[in-house]
Amino acid sequence: MSGNDPRELESLRAEIEALNVTLLEVLSRRAELVTEIQRAKTRDGIPTYVPEREQQMLAGLVRKNPGPFSDETVARLFKEIFRASVELMEASKERVLKISRAARRADLVLEVGASRIGAEPVLIAGPCAVESEEQMEEVAEGLAGLGVRFLRGGAFKPRSSPYSFQGLGVRGLELLAAAASRHGLLTVSEVMDTRSVELVSRYVDVLQIGSRNMYNYDLLRELGRCRKPVLLKRGLSATIEELLWSAEYIVSEGNDQVILCERGIRTYETETRNTLDISAVPLLRQKSYLPVIVDVSHAAGRKDILAPLGRAALAAGASGLMVEVHPCPAVARSDSQQQLDLAEFRRFLDAVGLERPLAPGLAAAAAGAATRALARPA
Amino acid sequence: MSGNDPRELESLRAEIEALNVTLLEVLSRRAELVTEIQRAKTRDGIPTYVPEREQQMLAGLVRKNPGPFSDETVARLFKEIFRASVELMEASKERVLKISRAARRADLVLEVGASRIGAEPVLIAGPCAVESEEQMEEVAEGLAGLGVRFLRGGAFKPRSSPYSFQGLGVRGLELLAAAASRHGLLTVSEVMDTRSVELVSRYVDVLQIGSRNMYNYDLLRELGRCRKPVLLKRGLSATIEELLWSAEYIVSEGNDQVILCERGIRTYETETRNTLDISAVPLLRQKSYLPVIVDVSHAAGRKDILAPLGRAALAAGASGLMVEVHPCPAVARSDSQQQLDLAEFRRFLDAVGLERPLAPGLAAAAAGAATRALARPA
Amino acid sequence: MSGNDPRELESLRAEIEALNVTLLEVLSRRAELVTEIQRAKTRDGIPTYVPEREQQMLAGLVRKNPGPFSDETVARLFKEIFRASVELMEASKERVLKISRAARRADLVLEVGASRIGAEPVLIAGPCAVESEEQMEEVAEGLAGLGVRFLRGGAFKPRSSPYSFQGLGVRGLELLAAAASRHGLLTVSEVMDTRSVELVSRYVDVLQIGSRNMYNYDLLRELGRCRKPVLLKRGLSATIEELLWSAEYIVSEGNDQVILCERGIRTYETETRNTLDISAVPLLRQKSYLPVIVDVSHAAGRKDILAPLGRAALAAGASGLMVEVHPCPAVARSDSQQQLDLAEFRRFLDAVGLERPLAPGLAAAAAGAATRALARPA
Amino acid sequence: MSGNDPRELESLRAEIEALNVTLLEVLSRRAELVTEIQRAKTRDGIPTYVPEREQQMLAGLVRKNPGPFSDETVARLFKEIFRASVELMEASKERVLKISRAARRADLVLEVGASRIGAEPVLIAGPCAVESEEQMEEVAEGLAGLGVRFLRGGAFKPRSSPYSFQGLGVRGLELLAAAASRHGLLTVSEVMDTRSVELVSRYVDVLQIGSRNMYNYDLLRELGRCRKPVLLKRGLSATIEELLWSAEYIVSEGNDQVILCERGIRTYETETRNTLDISAVPLLRQKSYLPVIVDVSHAAGRKDILAPLGRAALAAGASGLMVEVHPCPAVARSDSQQQLDLAEFRRFLDAVGLERPLAPGLAAAAAGAATRALARPA
Repeated sequence: MSGNDPRELESLRAEIEALNVTLLEVLSRRAELVTEIQRAKTRDGIPTYVPEREQQMLAGLVRKNPGPFSDETVARLFKEIFRASVELMEASKERVLKISRAARRADLVLEVGASRIGAEPVLIAGPCAVESEEQMEEVAEGLAGLGVRFLRGGAFKPRSSPYSFQGLGVRGLELLAAAASRHGLLTVSEVMDTRSVELVSRYVDVLQIGSRNMYNYDLLRELGRCRKPVLLKRGLSATIEELLWSAEYIVSEGNDQVILCERGIRTYETETRNTLDISAVPLLRQKSYLPVIVDVSHAAGRKDILAPLGRAALAAGASGLMVEVHPCPAVARSDSQQQLDLAEFRRFLDAVGLERPLAPGLAAAAAGAATRALARPA
Repeated sequence: MSGNDPRELESLRAEIEALNVTLLEVLSRRAELVTEIQRAKTRDGIPTYVPEREQQMLAGLVRKNPGPFSDETVARLFKEIFRASVELMEASKERVLKISRAARRADLVLEVGASRIGAEPVLIAGPCAVESEEQMEEVAEGLAGLGVRFLRGGAFKPRSSPYSFQGLGVRGLELLAAAASRHGLLTVSEVMDTRSVELVSRYVDVLQIGSRNMYNYDLLRELGRCRKPVLLKRGLSATIEELLWSAEYIVSEGNDQVILCERGIRTYETETRNTLDISAVPLLRQKSYLPVIVDVSHAAGRKDILAPLGRAALAAGASGLMVEVHPCPAVARSDSQQQLDLAEFRRFLDAVGLERPLAPGLAAAAAGAATRALARPA
Repeated sequence: MSGNDPRELESLRAEIEALNVTLLEVLSRRAELVTEIQRAKTRDGIPTYVPEREQQMLAGLVRKNPGPFSDETVARLFKEIFRASVELMEASKERVLKISRAARRADLVLEVGASRIGAEPVLIAGPCAVESEEQMEEVAEGLAGLGVRFLRGGAFKPRSSPYSFQGLGVRGLELLAAAASRHGLLTVSEVMDTRSVELVSRYVDVLQIGSRNMYNYDLLRELGRCRKPVLLKRGLSATIEELLWSAEYIVSEGNDQVILCERGIRTYETETRNTLDISAVPLLRQKSYLPVIVDVSHAAGRKDILAPLGRAALAAGASGLMVEVHPCPAVARSDSQQQLDLAEFRRFLDAVGLERPLAPGLAAAAAGAATRALARPA
Repeated sequence: MSGNDPRELESLRAEIEALNVTLLEVLSRRAELVTEIQRAKTRDGIPTYVPEREQQMLAGLVRKNPGPFSDETVARLFKEIFRASVELMEASKERVLKISRAARRADLVLEVGASRIGAEPVLIAGPCAVESEEQMEEVAEGLAGLGVRFLRGGAFKPRSSPYSFQGLGVRGLELLAAAASRHGLLTVSEVMDTRSVELVSRYVDVLQIGSRNMYNYDLLRELGRCRKPVLLKRGLSATIEELLWSAEYIVSEGNDQVILCERGIRTYETETRNTLDISAVPLLRQKSYLPVIVDVSHAAGRKDILAPLGRAALAAGASGLMVEVHPCPAVARSDSQQQLDLAEFRRFLDAVGLERPLAPGLAAAAAGAATRALARPA
């Protein structure tokens, strides 16, 4: 061999290209056999994936390894090949998540009352917790006047301390539903316990799963058996993938009316209560057809940057915003630092550029026609 | 005034010291008045803490601010003073957490069967999930032979994907209880749903709350009404304070048999599945009298550093270790990378230096005398 | 005292209000004395803050504590009072950061060539690393044609591995400056070592401090003595406050031409290379008058969400965007996954809605008139 | 085909096994060719890794994909195969890091004075910053009496604010060296700027790279050209892998006297200043032969849990501990909350169980014989 012989490299390269093709053929033939085995096993009711066999095959191949790859590399390459085969098997079953873009290309549009979530920017506003009839009346009236269609308010509050205010419970649901009804609003409220799903769904239009319950799989399943839309908040430090899996829990039980909600993740930064993961908005929309909204109040934990965050969320592709609004935040029984009063909320709307409908009365009327009954236990 | 006059500084300082004493007197007198008001209000059933009043007082003081402090500083100082008063009121009620060292100086020792958790190092071992009778028999026999007293095994598994293996349910509880019974072991298993607490508690000696349910307050409360010890795992990215509050949820309902479990927190580091927060061990022990154990398997997510982590946990003051052990990890239906086989677990015990009892038979007999019945639904 | 006597509460409240006013007066008088002492000390060259004295005063006050506050509460309240006084002293010196909004209300507008950073959206684009003359010519021509004014390209690359490509060094600076010059572009490039500041500043228009050097205080100071604008990137897990302090290092040395750059922070989420902290944009703008840009490429670490992130950044108030563009990303010597090719970048501009100037030739001419000389060492 | 024919599955499996062997042979032959090409290229000075070619090959293979694998799977499998080949090429060069266990099985033992770091537990103690002659004398005397051999003290302090105390500079180095010399101690101090390496190395026995400079590659390289041991601290949120790469920067320049230091990472938890990543200790020791010490003071940021952390660190395999000790922490000019006084440090030593030498005088004499000259600029 001579250093001046360009043919040498060329010929080595040609041989590699030929081997590549051989590899491709052998891999594809192997994959066909795997698919065939899988079909036979499924037919006969035999488990399709048997890790022991994989272990044995790997061990056998490593024993036969002639080099120059290290045994670790041989094992890694074959694990990759085995994995591709397993995926092939799973794909033939149900690999594609029900909530994925692969399963449905078009955005889901959820029609709730006169609102079309996913097709037009939606605003969900209201106090952290339902506290009193006066509070709810004042906030409902104010929000309806500003063109908001969804009234939120917690009746069951998840609080770190067992001694903090835990919400008014059923009484809270009643106050929320009554105030919403008087002003033609739809309602959103959190459910925390599998045993309360039926109760809460009697009062509210959209059931919320809070951040702390994103991994509460029994609750997710229970909501999957419910007929109402579900607003699913991302867990405190949940990955985007985990949020999607949690949505899949709901949808896999038959309820595909799910709204995803980014609300900030827990990081080392203390300027904000959480770190709004704005990238989650386009990523969730890319991976799933479900609408994505952003809870700017919990993300920031402070009032002074809600407008830029709201603008950023919409610019990133969010289908709506959730904002905490309280008639008198200073006396709120929880989250007083992050709730806007009605005047501040009006300025927020202007700054975010969400046009207010010319005739809120009409919107109210339309919403009033919604199916949300003034449900009270008979 | 002259730069050479040392008396000047001295006299200014003396005046400051006098003002300090005045401040102390006024603050203390103020605190007494607050306490008196609180007593009157409690007697008359009036809410003791009224944020509106605080707001009004603050506003009034800021209006009167003569300088040189900025208005912000005045507000901050008085908020601090008000906060101290509120704390005083709460303290006179129930400020001190039931689970705190302030409430009870001595370590809690939980007697479960022949085991005294909190007084001697405890080992909880077993597979991630109960999979089959053979698996449970093999692991129970092996662990009993190594002097382990607590057999863990999941029957209800919280899994990110709804399509992953979710545990054998009741059948899993039966297999766990039967295998434990045959070998004189006590059992630990997770409960995920408020509706299953009664069921699970019929089969197991210690009920586990997993990381994903640490914020599931209804579940915590339900376990607080149960008579069985509870092993409470720290949430994926829960603070130490939040873990203590979650324990308080259980204890506040009447069940003070709680074991805290550090199992790693979620960080950016990917070498380990989670980052074992070793500082949590002494901090939890300092703040609470409850026993603290460390789940080294979930912290590491890999087998090769379990022994040093186990040693470190005990050196930091942990009351015990939790380790995943499976008779054949390669074929486990979950967490296969982090489960030890029995031979590896034996080496782990040696490396950690946990002495194995000379006569495991005796231990088994003692445990057999425990109250854990071979509960099966009649 | 009777439970039916409303006068009782009223009178207690009145006394508290009176005590509040007394407290305010004493606190203010105390603050005046502290200020006076400070003036005297400064005049005489005596250290103004003496922690020992604080310790002694605290100890004395705690000894005198008559209750009902606990000693800890007394100590905490007085520490707060002392801290307010220290702040007052520092404020009278130089408390206000040079870079803060308090120091300057209006946004800083940096004029670099024909560009007015802070007044109009600025685009900084170009390859991660300068690799060859052809690469730079192709990218410079393409970017100029799209109306971009700032060409970035690394000549000194901070790489985790000492064996990775470390940049072309001086040759890279030459290629960058030459390509920019041919197309009327301004240049941005990173400097990593105090000893290279003079060299790099001869070639580039804007000196960049990379994330890994945000805490390199000697480098910051050296750039503070430089006459060129500095683009300061937030550290991998730096707080917003730390980023501002690092900017202050530069400005405190005399160079107030600083551009802040949010580029994502390190979190547990792995979908993106970093987590873009969108809240940092309004917070930095609120706290400082310096312009803030967003490096979407490093935040995302992937190409497919750059447009929504770019839109979100501008909507949140960013003064510009930084994007990695390479004529042929697949063969880039670093960061190949996150660099756009020119066609992708054109689509990015459209999607972000940054209008392209009608006559890029004019922009080029204007920029060509800039002071950036074709600096080469004589 | 019949569902009752067990031969069917057997025969399919046999064919798969045969294909596995074929794959192994083709992969190995391919790897040999790659190695041959690489040898030829190296000899002729041609770049060995050409990403374009890889792209072309991938594209060609995907075009030929006959199924059933998706094109993405084919691309992924071949990328894995190509990657294995590239690794093979790099391995034949210098793949193995100089600092890795693969490069050297035995632990490195660094002999500094009479101390053998890596062979016996080492204690590095002293104040955060050198402040005065009295301070250094008092602490040096105290530490020497307790058997400590390494005196730390910062002369150049990296501080977030440019207005905080930045250390005494050269005067600090002089005071540190003089106090150490009087008591037979060795010294550790931080260097922050490439331009100061020569200066600092004249005064101290071990040069420290602080957390904020772990990514300061020019500084790392400069220390690689130095003859003194280097203590390299993990960055605020550096991965274990990045820490090892930074060590490789030093060693690759010729200085293999590196001590790794875990000092906690930045997380959301606020009880501690940082989160001590105890798993890093066994992982670093597994991956590298370099000694690993733990800075418990910076990890905790508080005094009350230093002893359990120290015990845990040693139990996890650390070669030593670093602790901040100040004669009077309350008046320290930095980090006052985390520095122990001498009495507290004595209790810490007892609690950690580090035996104190019977004759500290002897240790001092031995250390005094060390090569650390009383270097002062002539």
